Amino acid sequence: VQSFSELVRNYQVVFFDAYGVLKNSAGVLAGVPAMLEALIAEGKDLYVVTNDASKSPQAMADQFPGGANGDILDSARFISSGLMATDFLSAKVPAGKVAYLGKLSSAFYVEATGKHQAVPIADCGPSDDVEALVLLDDEGFDWQRDINLALNLLRRKNIPAIVANADPTYPVDGKNVAVAVGALGRLLEEMVGKRFIHFGKPDAYMFSFALSKARKQRPGLNKREILMVGDTLQTDIAGGNKFGVDTVLVLSGNTAAKHAAMRIEASGIIPTFICESVLT
Amino acid sequence: VQSFSELVRNYQVVFFDAYGVLKNSAGVLAGVPAMLEALIAEGKDLYVVTNDASKSPQAMADQFPGGANGDILDSARFISSGLMATDFLSAKVPAGKVAYLGKLSSAFYVEATGKHQAVPIADCGPSDDVEALVLLDDEGFDWQRDINLALNLLRRKNIPAIVANADPTYPVDGKNVAVAVGALGRLLEEMVGKRFIHFGKPDAYMFSFALSKARKQRPGLNKREILMVGDTLQTDIAGGNKFGVDTVLVLSGNTAAKHAAMRIEASGIIPTFICESVLT
Amino acid sequence: VQSFSELVRNYQVVFFDAYGVLKNSAGVLAGVPAMLEALIAEGKDLYVVTNDASKSPQAMADQFPGGANGDILDSARFISSGLMATDFLSAKVPAGKVAYLGKLSSAFYVEATGKHQAVPIADCGPSDDVEALVLLDDEGFDWQRDINLALNLLRRKNIPAIVANADPTYPVDGKNVAVAVGALGRLLEEMVGKRFIHFGKPDAYMFSFALSKARKQRPGLNKREILMVGDTLQTDIAGGNKFGVDTVLVLSGNTAAKHAAMRIEASGIIPTFICESVLT
Amino acid sequence: VQSFSELVRNYQVVFFDAYGVLKNSAGVLAGVPAMLEALIAEGKDLYVVTNDASKSPQAMADQFPGGANGDILDSARFISSGLMATDFLSAKVPAGKVAYLGKLSSAFYVEATGKHQAVPIADCGPSDDVEALVLLDDEGFDWQRDINLALNLLRRKNIPAIVANADPTYPVDGKNVAVAVGALGRLLEEMVGKRFIHFGKPDAYMFSFALSKARKQRPGLNKREILMVGDTLQTDIAGGNKFGVDTVLVLSGNTAAKHAAMRIEASGIIPTFICESVLT
Repeated sequence: VQSFSELVRNYQVVFFDAYGVLKNSAGVLAGVPAMLEALIAEGKDLYVVTNDASKSPQAMADQFPGGANGDILDSARFISSGLMATDFLSAKVPAGKVAYLGKLSSAFYVEATGKHQAVPIADCGPSDDVEALVLLDDEGFDWQRDINLALNLLRRKNIPAIVANADPTYPVDGKNVAVAVGALGRLLEEMVGKRFIHFGKPDAYMFSFALSKARKQRPGLNKREILMVGDTLQTDIAGGNKFGVDTVLVLSGNTAAKHAAMRIEASGIIPTFICESVLT
Repeated sequence: VQSFSELVRNYQVVFFDAYGVLKNSAGVLAGVPAMLEALIAEGKDLYVVTNDASKSPQAMADQFPGGANGDILDSARFISSGLMATDFLSAKVPAGKVAYLGKLSSAFYVEATGKHQAVPIADCGPSDDVEALVLLDDEGFDWQRDINLALNLLRRKNIPAIVANADPTYPVDGKNVAVAVGALGRLLEEMVGKRFIHFGKPDAYMFSFALSKARKQRPGLNKREILMVGDTLQTDIAGGNKFGVDTVLVLSGNTAAKHAAMRIEASGIIPTFICESVLT
Repeated sequence: VQSFSELVRNYQVVFFDAYGVLKNSAGVLAGVPAMLEALIAEGKDLYVVTNDASKSPQAMADQFPGGANGDILDSARFISSGLMATDFLSAKVPAGKVAYLGKLSSAFYVEATGKHQAVPIADCGPSDDVEALVLLDDEGFDWQRDINLALNLLRRKNIPAIVANADPTYPVDGKNVAVAVGALGRLLEEMVGKRFIHFGKPDAYMFSFALSKARKQRPGLNKREILMVGDTLQTDIAGGNKFGVDTVLVLSGNTAAKHAAMRIEASGIIPTFICESVLT
Repeated sequence: VQSFSELVRNYQVVFFDAYGVLKNSAGVLAGVPAMLEALIAEGKDLYVVTNDASKSPQAMADQFPGGANGDILDSARFISSGLMATDFLSAKVPAGKVAYLGKLSSAFYVEATGKHQAVPIADCGPSDDVEALVLLDDEGFDWQRDINLALNLLRRKNIPAIVANADPTYPVDGKNVAVAVGALGRLLEEMVGKRFIHFGKPDAYMFSFALSKARKQRPGLNKREILMVGDTLQTDIAGGNKFGVDTVLVLSGNTAAKHAAMRIEASGIIPTFICESVLT
């Protein structure tokens, strides 16, 4: 276990996971805005790399207000798994209707292509002129009705099914978790028997997307200059390791200090470093 | 493909699947009551072996009314996967509250032990004095609220979790299917990471339970004298084959005539016989 | 943790797992023969219920020699997972050649049907007049050559594939384990994409087979009078629990004392009792 | 189904799968060298993107000899899944010994880091001073001995395990397939219970690596200018689709013309285009 503030000096670019690292169920952690501003003042390039397609990058950025100058981090620095879905729809899916499961705010990731219309699956109607199905968030719809609608839509029509957040669960408070949309996607995928397209850490595509962004600021950026900071072994650390960047596990979220050694041993996922939190 | 009425002559005992064999979404198939009565008149012992814990065996029997003499088949001849749950609770779970997901009518399988009180999971409260969790049916509860409650209950308390119907989906009409409670059980099991107890075909326990019943009528009954009749390769046929009884696939339900050969080849599950339906 | 000798007084019939309970890599545990003889003298009915198809029940019985009177337990009291394969072949597979993977001594379970000829898969030749494939043991064949032969046989011919031992690994000494035939079966099953027939604990069929045997000695035997004794949560305890018999986890094999509580919590598989060993 | 030579005109960069596309078990397809040379003459940038870590890129390039000028494609244009392993070892694994399973020629991908020594697992000895385990190829070792050695090494030591080829099987001739190292990796991973690091299509990392190479030749290259050509839905097409490039399924390898429509329907993996072969 070492000091985050000392560790981060060795890197030019930092990828932060959001939940369990910069914020928790009570909001942004006290001290985090000052920490981020200090790193920016030192010339670091910061990105938030998050499995979250429930709201737009701008809405994410607004959670870190920076006073008169606007948000601490520009919305372009929020690499959400929803953006991978937007990219995929842009590149591969014909213009038209896209059925979705999720909150109204999550529909942003469909509409952002400029050529697709996001339609809640319950409003799709029997004509089925939909070009794809996207699972964006676990809230905003009636699970029983809409999971059954999604199941039958995919049995009738061979269209791409995209899951914009690979997480199976997410923490709702210190004690409880909730089923995330990634788990609903796996449920549907098994029943339909077709291959869905899953986006989000630990998938390499998130990291490669973030790297491309970072290289626009810093051409020639080497992976050795990047640090991935996360609280979850299976997503943040496994994904960062495979992508070839250094990783630091913080003990402020999913992985409590007392379980860390046992979980690293059990999973075989070994972070490069361990810190108490980003505030140490 | 051969005639069911000729085939059945070679057996003393017949295990029928219900849905897709004796009934469909429109109710009991015309001709089935007469067929059943004819077999009983010939001295056959008939049982319905069904992955269904949504209602009691008596309610199942009442779907096959036999005129003045009561139901065609006595409720004791309905071997439901719910009865396996009742058996398990009786043998292995201390008296007290059992949380359940399912319709009110499915709670029968908890209360039938005589020592347990079935409580919808939403009514369990934070005190958690529950001895087991049973998933009985996909209807009768709010999926989002109650699946999340079940997930957190199992994370807090190391109690047995029982899934009383292994099916992932069930047909609701000629074109559409619905997510069955078996799939919800798998979803929870993966998220919790603990081993659940699953009952229902193809599991050998259903067949061994039915055989025990049949042997009470016919001591010394040999498995070679039993015919399992079903419309689903993965449950009825795979289970019957493994248990060592002859199996007949009928083409009146899940497995349409045009797909039968391909599905047998693809799955490697080979029925002993194939019939159009039980009415041939 | 309690005394096995006191616990066992409450039961009429005992099902013992073999490896990790009665013996280990060094052979039968000192004290076990005397313990077994004492239980028999008290009138208990003892059975060994074992995931092992590497040798015949007689060869298993001979590992527990009883002096002038022959073996302590008659070979009929060894319920091996191989016997389930024999049963299945007898009931469901036409007379003829059966290809197998395993030691020569494991071929017993094919030949025991009296109508099948066990042929090592490497000797099957291109004519493929084989009626089934049986995986019996991890030894006695060239893995690379014969797993590839099995894969292509099953791609060419839609015949039943039987795995006569569900275990993924087995201990070879205090520190090391070995890949068991159950894991090779899963590997083949995933590649072929067909449903294999797996026998062995925790499957209910093993327990139902053992119960039938026990009831021949004691008609009317109730499951409450049976104790399952095992060292492995996933097979012995999960299977016994589901079957509705009392279970005791012994800490002399796969589950070391220091890990027991953590593994019970993590797996959700809760033994009725825990004992240090069968010698306490 | 359309003409490949016409289709390819619309792209600047082509990613070819090798086996089933450019070559088969009899070697490079007649006509392929001329086709490649014609595309190069037209100014296309060509890459071979292949799940194969059995030999070095140079050895792959030498299979496409181009006469006096050397190979048709420079070795730098062969993007093998083995290179991902090399990259990972370079970035994340301390200098020292790396245990491997595979042919001698596959050890190239370990030694290429310049700081690791590739040691066949059977030669590692009990001291276990190894920093990682890499599965490179299905040949070149004794499966039973060395899979068991790998299993116990990973149980003893928490080191990264890398699978440098995700394929479960590969074709050996028109009729037979063989178990590939990807399947052996899955087998080990399930038994050990730890997370392995898998490289190869459909993983996004292969495509992002190839894109980086291509952009060195053509800065500003857009994904819309790239065509992925493959014979396998699950790897070439699923991976290319997710990465956002156009994909063409050729019917000259794993996916025969008569099965193509059914497999696309069953898998839900939809190629952008279909061509008989790269020679049409």
